[in-house]
Amino acid sequence: MPENRQPHVVVVGAGFAGLNVVRALKKAPVSITVIDRTNHHLFQPLLYQVATASLSPADIAAPIRAVVRRQKNVRVLLADVVGIELVAKTVTLDDGEVVGWDYLVLATGSTHSYFGHPEWETHARGLKTLDDAIAIRNEVLLAFEAAERSRTEEERARNLSFVIVGGGPTGVELAGAIAEIARYSLARDFDTIDPTQASIQLLEGAPRILLAFPDSLAGKAQRELEKLGVRVRLGSMVTAIDEHGVTLADGERIEASTLLWAAGVQASPIGRIAGLETDRVGRIPVQADLRVAGYESVFVAGDLALLNGPRGKPYPGVAQVAIQQGKKVAANVSAMVAGEPLTAFRYQDRGNMATVGRNYAIAEIWKLRLTGFPAWLTWIFVHIAYLIGFRNRVFVLFQWAYGYLTYHRRVRLITRPGKQID
Amino acid sequence: MPENRQPHVVVVGAGFAGLNVVRALKKAPVSITVIDRTNHHLFQPLLYQVATASLSPADIAAPIRAVVRRQKNVRVLLADVVGIELVAKTVTLDDGEVVGWDYLVLATGSTHSYFGHPEWETHARGLKTLDDAIAIRNEVLLAFEAAERSRTEEERARNLSFVIVGGGPTGVELAGAIAEIARYSLARDFDTIDPTQASIQLLEGAPRILLAFPDSLAGKAQRELEKLGVRVRLGSMVTAIDEHGVTLADGERIEASTLLWAAGVQASPIGRIAGLETDRVGRIPVQADLRVAGYESVFVAGDLALLNGPRGKPYPGVAQVAIQQGKKVAANVSAMVAGEPLTAFRYQDRGNMATVGRNYAIAEIWKLRLTGFPAWLTWIFVHIAYLIGFRNRVFVLFQWAYGYLTYHRRVRLITRPGKQID
Repeated sequence: MPENRQPHVVVVGAGFAGLNVVRALKKAPVSITVIDRTNHHLFQPLLYQVATASLSPADIAAPIRAVVRRQKNVRVLLADVVGIELVAKTVTLDDGEVVGWDYLVLATGSTHSYFGHPEWETHARGLKTLDDAIAIRNEVLLAFEAAERSRTEEERARNLSFVIVGGGPTGVELAGAIAEIARYSLARDFDTIDPTQASIQLLEGAPRILLAFPDSLAGKAQRELEKLGVRVRLGSMVTAIDEHGVTLADGERIEASTLLWAAGVQASPIGRIAGLETDRVGRIPVQADLRVAGYESVFVAGDLALLNGPRGKPYPGVAQVAIQQGKKVAANVSAMVAGEPLTAFRYQDRGNMATVGRNYAIAEIWKLRLTGFPAWLTWIFVHIAYLIGFRNRVFVLFQWAYGYLTYHRRVRLITRPGKQID
Repeated sequence: MPENRQPHVVVVGAGFAGLNVVRALKKAPVSITVIDRTNHHLFQPLLYQVATASLSPADIAAPIRAVVRRQKNVRVLLADVVGIELVAKTVTLDDGEVVGWDYLVLATGSTHSYFGHPEWETHARGLKTLDDAIAIRNEVLLAFEAAERSRTEEERARNLSFVIVGGGPTGVELAGAIAEIARYSLARDFDTIDPTQASIQLLEGAPRILLAFPDSLAGKAQRELEKLGVRVRLGSMVTAIDEHGVTLADGERIEASTLLWAAGVQASPIGRIAGLETDRVGRIPVQADLRVAGYESVFVAGDLALLNGPRGKPYPGVAQVAIQQGKKVAANVSAMVAGEPLTAFRYQDRGNMATVGRNYAIAEIWKLRLTGFPAWLTWIFVHIAYLIGFRNRVFVLFQWAYGYLTYHRRVRLITRPGKQID
């Protein structure tokens, strides 16, 4: 690190929250170290498009160093944080290096939760990282290859059976995209596969999908999914998962070679590493100024932070909240450095969207409810606008336009050798 | 397979040779099964661009099913061939399925050869598959990350030391691209790395690099490499490789965290599986009509085939030979089906090219020798023209244009978790 007397801000995590802290401190009289275990910032809202072979990993991921290249006061470290000393004001990295800080920002986000069944992870992968997306892409594509090679109808049916657990936006987006793959784009390439044979089931424990959306929009999304051939099963609780399928609470057994998990998330374990109080899912409670009570220079932002909104409910773990909290943390760090008073986080809800398949979406934006193609176009442009890095935007727009016009799934690569076809 | 009485052609391998057999049999009265262990056709000449973060895997790989989608007489199987019965005329797949054939085409190409030291593969990866390219990309990018975190100058120097073994086109292309990464594009993103510290050494056992090119062109390529900062070491035989570096025949030790192997290739082991006679490196000798002596319906094409050219030297293992042999096999299969005489393979040498870094190449085309930027432009257009699939061409041209104008390495993603930084 360059020799200077400026306060040192350590930001752990370069997702939406962490990166927005860094960028908003561009002109602040501080030096910054941002630490992440991967070398890229990931545009998570489009991760399902990588998982379903529409976009390449590089389209939705930007190297952190490239994102902050022009910002002089930042140092980037590819590392895992294995220890945090809140009194001594240090973090310890996986190679033993100890980094001191004046201000600490924890923004490590969330990961999957299997509701006390960690063994389910082996059979039903979740979608949080680029590696998850590539693994799911391989799994889905290999299922079709295995179906083509199946020698009995029973085996073929199992290979063409896809179960997605969890009816939130990720589950809906995965189910819609897989239905399109199965029934339109991919299926045409196989000789022995009848597209209508494919079974795509979306399991949701609650009485409806997309709980974060108004009832009417969620209902329309469900009908659209059903038009694509997805069987939406509400009130379906999963009680067991193994490599060949799932068992429901009523005893029903669903055979499926591909099981995907979009049901639960928990916070990253960094709260425990720091010895901080956390809630049931690992989130760290923060004050309205996004600091941890009792630690005047420790901030938490994004999915990792637990803060109640004006209606008494915690802010949801979505990109908009993380981005806005990141900016607020930066403003409050600047305020502390300048000896000015801190201000409270206030969320500007810019709306909520989810896509269903190739050209349908639902959106709720400033009280406006959109469905269908207009919502889908809005979705495209909002996501393009937020993609970090000009080049990715142009490329992704191109690929969408092309994919839309031709129904192709360009990125149908099975990588990673050694994966067995069952 | 559809019920019919047409002769059945089984093609093993969907590289340049195999795919050209399939495509040239489009209108032939045969049914075709093409078997490959991956689901994609790979444009191998550009593989080093994936390994050095200029192109995405999807830019140079096309799903085999997509390539042959419109061809009605083809069935595609993702499988490993584990047995070949030349008398019974069957191949056995890894799942036990037995596929009968009337004509068999072996086109499984080549893999790395470590000259009797298979244990070197762990430390010095070769570049033949998409997975190799992604692994090399990770390794190179992680070396810079490790350098940034190094605590001693010695450790940093080792992390910034790159050794490429083998001065053929692949070695030259890798060395040039890594030199540019180290000295220009990537190095700017790091705080503690001095680009001139990076050491890139290209080791070649022969007295010069690029033996397939005329002396004058090879000399120019070498000088260009040296301008980029590559140390080209001729007459350097490697006698030992371990995880920290290489030892040369004269006892010199070179410390390097990144070792890449571009020195030797051998044919895929399918000749042995079939019980056929092979040469020292596993190639199967063929007659001028590309059939194996003694087996009138078994053809071999591409890197796997051993056939001497007019000057008594075997045809080299390059894309042009594979493409032309593939077409010849298709013509001879058609001739046999029609009861017409077979014809001998004649190679039309369209020339030879190699790139050195971002905008320099050497080319020998129809006796014309080009160097520098004109050769580089020629190289670009020849490669674009041969990229299978219109879409990839446009995308790759875009990315090259962008990368050329900006010096960016867009695809700087470290994927695959669990890789340790040393």
